[in-house]
Amino acid sequence: MGTTMNGASVLGIDIGGTKMALASVDPRGTVLHRSVVGAPAADAGRMVESLLELVDGGIASARAAGLDVEAVGIGAAGFILKDEGVLMSSPNIAWSMVPLRELVAQRTGLPAFLDNDATAAAAGERLAGVARGLDDFVLVTLGTGIGGGICAGGRILRGHRGTAAEVGHMVVDPHGPECGCGRRGCLESLASGTALEREAVRLASTDERSVLHDASCSDPASVTGEMVASAARAGDAAAAAAFENISWHLGLGIANLVHLLDPQMVVIGGGVSRSGDLFIDAVRDTVASRGLPDLVRDVRIELSTLGGDAGVVGAAAVAWEGIGAPLSN
Amino acid sequence: MGTTMNGASVLGIDIGGTKMALASVDPRGTVLHRSVVGAPAADAGRMVESLLELVDGGIASARAAGLDVEAVGIGAAGFILKDEGVLMSSPNIAWSMVPLRELVAQRTGLPAFLDNDATAAAAGERLAGVARGLDDFVLVTLGTGIGGGICAGGRILRGHRGTAAEVGHMVVDPHGPECGCGRRGCLESLASGTALEREAVRLASTDERSVLHDASCSDPASVTGEMVASAARAGDAAAAAAFENISWHLGLGIANLVHLLDPQMVVIGGGVSRSGDLFIDAVRDTVASRGLPDLVRDVRIELSTLGGDAGVVGAAAVAWEGIGAPLSN
Repeated sequence: MGTTMNGASVLGIDIGGTKMALASVDPRGTVLHRSVVGAPAADAGRMVESLLELVDGGIASARAAGLDVEAVGIGAAGFILKDEGVLMSSPNIAWSMVPLRELVAQRTGLPAFLDNDATAAAAGERLAGVARGLDDFVLVTLGTGIGGGICAGGRILRGHRGTAAEVGHMVVDPHGPECGCGRRGCLESLASGTALEREAVRLASTDERSVLHDASCSDPASVTGEMVASAARAGDAAAAAAFENISWHLGLGIANLVHLLDPQMVVIGGGVSRSGDLFIDAVRDTVASRGLPDLVRDVRIELSTLGGDAGVVGAAAVAWEGIGAPLSN
Repeated sequence: MGTTMNGASVLGIDIGGTKMALASVDPRGTVLHRSVVGAPAADAGRMVESLLELVDGGIASARAAGLDVEAVGIGAAGFILKDEGVLMSSPNIAWSMVPLRELVAQRTGLPAFLDNDATAAAAGERLAGVARGLDDFVLVTLGTGIGGGICAGGRILRGHRGTAAEVGHMVVDPHGPECGCGRRGCLESLASGTALEREAVRLASTDERSVLHDASCSDPASVTGEMVASAARAGDAAAAAAFENISWHLGLGIANLVHLLDPQMVVIGGGVSRSGDLFIDAVRDTVASRGLPDLVRDVRIELSTLGGDAGVVGAAAVAWEGIGAPLSN
């Protein structure tokens, strides 16, 4: 918990397929207050209701704590139409063409802003994370899927409509595994948390020495990323090899991003980055060996330091940006 | 030839591995005067001398025609350090860390600006080409290699140092053919003019009905892109299949770019685009079938219309941008 001189804050809301999180955040990106509710993602109407109740509660809590709430930022998993403030579609939520910005602005009477969650997270990394103050960087978020955010020349790059930085659906191997999107060899199919679990199951199921062997054979769906990370930490060869495989493809994808965007830094975020110590060196090695030396040599590759707050801090950064606040970073 | 009200112009210089071209260009991107010299690319010292003589001649010609020359823009094939105005390295020119901007500024006493040639070409497409006035587009240049330029949010994206948009070295198939850069499966190795020739030779050498069969067997190096295009136009199956192969990979690469950058348009330029009628529809089909429908649906894929002037108009656009001229497009 931090404090600000004038009590200025915005609400940052992170909408995912399993939960919705909210925080009051000051102009430096400090989280002042948090709340979380489950996401009834399969029911579009209830999902909107839950969101608006979460917002009501967040404003009430912030004001009770003596904070001014100046705006609301929303980061949502899915394709966004930025100018319209509309969530076009989402991989894990039964929403289509939902005018999220307008719904929240009407409910609160405050300026509201909507962005893709990974795009918002990039704004958060610039405000308060490892990329604080950098003008040119890329964020790659590793979770169930892979998302991304781009900051170029000091501005978050959103593209024409707001769908830019779909890093996860960059094809890096057209002969690769099938992706959730129906295509083959997207980075998401090769380097996400889901890919990590699939690789661990594949390798452990034929390796009787692996602590994951029995589960991989009897109930592959029970093998989680956390289990793979624990096993790798304990020296399990199959688990370590699974991390190596995703690191290689992630490095290939990051080299592509560096060639395209010439960033100062690539930040790796998302839930899988909590196990980043297990793979960051391998990713750096792949970028160095597979990238063009003149282009990749000076690029820093770092893990996000925002942890579980990355989503709400990112959404708040979008709100601060939206109201044109001079950010005090 | 065009005229301007006030005779304002800049020089645009396009430096390639075989020739250096120069033009006087007005604020609308109209070419007023042109000259070309050969590029003694193997001799670093003579290359600089030739460039400076070309600039001298260009300024003299422009002034003789009653034009004010306000600045000089340079587009060069290679990796650029933008802030320093230095050509770091170039694939086909014996130059390393050459301070091109300073050399030209000192010789002329005019503001000078240096960019990668494809980045400059993107500025030219926005000033006077098919992307005129668009804020979000990508240019892919197909020649011996593949280059690129990105315009995002109304600004040419150069990255941290100036090397952004190396589209040709996006890996789209890690099992693909070896690239000139030493890696495998870069877009350049699969969809450049060189790749077109290689594919045509491969296919025609085993197809006795192909008009390219004899040359492909006896002297593969003699098969040029122009020959492949002529053969494809005449209905030659091997030549048509070579165009199909590069179109497929180009479409894959363009889908990646659309997912990453959410542009309004992708422009295909470079020498190979002169045969664009032979492959543009196949590229559009691949983008539509391999891209994510929500993301690629409304993106226009167009051929550059600037032809042989793309390089000098692009370099001139960089100069106009550099001196902050209000462009009258």
